[in-house]
Amino acid sequence: LSPGRLAVVGLGPGDAGTCTPDVVTELTAATDRVGYGRYLDLAAGIVPLADGAVEHRTDNREEADRAAHAIQLAAEGRHVVVISSGDPGIFAIAAAVMEQLDGTSTDVEVVVHPGVSAAQVAAARAGAPLGHDFCVISLSDNLKPWSIIERRLDAAAGADFVLALYNPKSKARPDQFARAVDVLLQHRDSSTPVVLGRSLGRPGEVVEHVTLGQLTEAEIDMATVVLVGSSQTRTIAGRWTYTPRSHPG
Amino acid sequence: LSPGRLAVVGLGPGDAGTCTPDVVTELTAATDRVGYGRYLDLAAGIVPLADGAVEHRTDNREEADRAAHAIQLAAEGRHVVVISSGDPGIFAIAAAVMEQLDGTSTDVEVVVHPGVSAAQVAAARAGAPLGHDFCVISLSDNLKPWSIIERRLDAAAGADFVLALYNPKSKARPDQFARAVDVLLQHRDSSTPVVLGRSLGRPGEVVEHVTLGQLTEAEIDMATVVLVGSSQTRTIAGRWTYTPRSHPG
Repeated sequence: LSPGRLAVVGLGPGDAGTCTPDVVTELTAATDRVGYGRYLDLAAGIVPLADGAVEHRTDNREEADRAAHAIQLAAEGRHVVVISSGDPGIFAIAAAVMEQLDGTSTDVEVVVHPGVSAAQVAAARAGAPLGHDFCVISLSDNLKPWSIIERRLDAAAGADFVLALYNPKSKARPDQFARAVDVLLQHRDSSTPVVLGRSLGRPGEVVEHVTLGQLTEAEIDMATVVLVGSSQTRTIAGRWTYTPRSHPG
Repeated sequence: LSPGRLAVVGLGPGDAGTCTPDVVTELTAATDRVGYGRYLDLAAGIVPLADGAVEHRTDNREEADRAAHAIQLAAEGRHVVVISSGDPGIFAIAAAVMEQLDGTSTDVEVVVHPGVSAAQVAAARAGAPLGHDFCVISLSDNLKPWSIIERRLDAAAGADFVLALYNPKSKARPDQFARAVDVLLQHRDSSTPVVLGRSLGRPGEVVEHVTLGQLTEAEIDMATVVLVGSSQTRTIAGRWTYTPRSHPG
């Protein structure tokens, strides 16, 4: 068999208007779609599954297995698309695919297509909170110790970065989010503007403008993205939040 | 006159395949396109200017004037699109538009559409260097003091973030980039993988896999994006660079 092709793609938030043409092309051409079931549903809403094409649905936590399976399918000559929401390179499947490729001898063609990540969608809806230097941090301690997360929050807040927080809270770790907020409050005023984004690009989308002091009482789950302003971030009449391009130092 | 509409859009790197349908829709509907001439050229390559539509070309440094002009045109009833490359919310025009809206009383409808930023394109071409927590920093000191930049580089490198550096070098400040690399070398080994991206999505695109120790000798200009790995970032045969999803702490 001649080797196939493996395309790693990001849908963006999930609506067709934010999915790039390159990703649409890959979805259209693929013989096999691999991914977490929820992402395959979003993909089918953008490009319906072609006759004869196959969906391989996996649990969200089995990223290594999913990546290995996708590489194997491509090695068998299939045209495989591995699907993430957002950008596959930001807390998503591209790193898992690379981990599986590392040490594997394969002549499969591999391509990665970027997508618009949740923090960018929340920022656009809210104005321009990421308008200056910012950090992107996952608060999930599934794959790294909590001590590293606290250290990074402390460093980022101490150097006055805007922060984009992914996977802020899950049922398995209900208390950690409050600890993260405590670290931020050591460096930032409780009136610091914060943007919350949920179900972005999908029915029921919510974007809220709150403050750091209100954050522990806000409705936040694993699918919420949280943008915490710097010392310079401002709001306009509760409608827009932005970080100016200049910083006084 | 009834108020018009102001859409702030990001083209992505500049090729049609990475520009979202929402942005194409705005470009198609606009009566006026406002932006740096180079970005207007990229936009015209994706959606040709409609008959009767007007281009307003400005110098890249006149962001405040450009934003004020766009708001004024929209207030006069025009359908205005303000154009950035990449994501308008990441070191681009959205913050300048918000600064102009702040304190202005207007009933113009304003919408911001995200786009794929240069760091995401470079990361996708290179594999998954942003696969874990990362910071995004502009090295330009036009709008902030150099001391803030050094402090942020030091904090980000010290907490083992991956770094995405925008505007790394200009003719006006040839020595600062070497100082930035020195700060990073205080925390990272000289063998740390680095990805360089230039002319992304355009003819002549270059993506290079180098190391932190090679960075001061590398060909870098204002339009290069530089991705500096964490302690965990690895390369595969000089073809891929990625940061694993897990961190040992």
